[in-house]
Amino acid sequence: MKIAVFGTGMVGDTIGSRLIELGHLVMMGSRSITNEKALAFVAKHKTGASNGTFAEAAMFGEIIFNCTKGEASIDALKAAGSAIDEKIIVDVSNPLDFSKGMPPSLIPALSNTYSLGEEIQKTFPKAKVVKTLNTMWCGLMVNPNMIGGGDHTNFICGNDAGAKAKVKSLLNEFGWKDQNILDLGDITNARGSEAVLPIWLRVWSATKNGAFNFKLVQ
Amino acid sequence: MKIAVFGTGMVGDTIGSRLIELGHLVMMGSRSITNEKALAFVAKHKTGASNGTFAEAAMFGEIIFNCTKGEASIDALKAAGSAIDEKIIVDVSNPLDFSKGMPPSLIPALSNTYSLGEEIQKTFPKAKVVKTLNTMWCGLMVNPNMIGGGDHTNFICGNDAGAKAKVKSLLNEFGWKDQNILDLGDITNARGSEAVLPIWLRVWSATKNGAFNFKLVQ
Repeated sequence: MKIAVFGTGMVGDTIGSRLIELGHLVMMGSRSITNEKALAFVAKHKTGASNGTFAEAAMFGEIIFNCTKGEASIDALKAAGSAIDEKIIVDVSNPLDFSKGMPPSLIPALSNTYSLGEEIQKTFPKAKVVKTLNTMWCGLMVNPNMIGGGDHTNFICGNDAGAKAKVKSLLNEFGWKDQNILDLGDITNARGSEAVLPIWLRVWSATKNGAFNFKLVQ
Repeated sequence: MKIAVFGTGMVGDTIGSRLIELGHLVMMGSRSITNEKALAFVAKHKTGASNGTFAEAAMFGEIIFNCTKGEASIDALKAAGSAIDEKIIVDVSNPLDFSKGMPPSLIPALSNTYSLGEEIQKTFPKAKVVKTLNTMWCGLMVNPNMIGGGDHTNFICGNDAGAKAKVKSLLNEFGWKDQNILDLGDITNARGSEAVLPIWLRVWSATKNGAFNFKLVQ
């Protein structure tokens, strides 16, 4: 599958590299086609990797992974223009607010009674936003079997059932078993999964280990 | 041990009853000594249960469980007056805001960059606030072995190490194993554990089953 990865940070690099390993074609999108991190991403993969502007990447990909920082996500996606219409946007970002000290809090306008996932869906009504994977370290996103035999929980939500099914199939490729993917419902449930960050950050601080996730025990 | 339980709802009744079952003496505190739920609580226990005003209960208990609704917690605790000084307050409440529809959100002034746990500690600087158990249904609070062999996570935080140790001992009595109690640090970490509610409420809605908890998988 042709997939766009927006964002050149650790999350974008990790997801893009795993997708290539699985045989997909990945175009990493960024503001400039001379972005050094994007060029380094292309250079380290013998095949399957390319880079381009956000618009070029959006045109290339059937699915777009939003791996940009939450505070910059809307602008990055807007830079893609109409190429983003009708596309599936897998939103793994979080509306973190680093302006009030560490650990970061959530951007007030994008939390509690609203969410970044909803803001993306509202800004791009023709796109199909699927929020998932945002509640863990990127290494686990693409390789859940790294801990606990993969038996821990990944939340997913979004308004379009077909889009969620396609994304779940990609999650299966990453190693996520169906019974560990919990569909919360429509995109308003991003208010829940994005709110995992405040506890995630504090568990990380207490345990000094980011390679953890939460498992739903019933 | 003599223990006060503030609040006559399901949480207070469940915790109070379990404490009595374990051999403790419990006084349920409420606004009025003729509170019907408090009287029913006393009536159903042959021994160990009493009721009184918030002030009477605070005087009685070495430890106070705050099981009042988050929006009413500060007022309830204030009603106890100086009897609350030096006491350990086990705060199991959450700052839920039911004014903006269901599922409830968090009270803006008591979330994200602040928390109800911190507000209680700030309002009663001589008391020792320990936030714990607030991330699950009350049946599990007092009987973690009900699911998953008890192997799921309960967060605890607070500024006073001695108070946390005493509360941990009570948690052990409830059935919590040490390895399932994660100390996040000081009371500011209530910002994390109270932020579990937005995801908790949505998992509950998606699964139609409140008898669940999250387990930290590393």
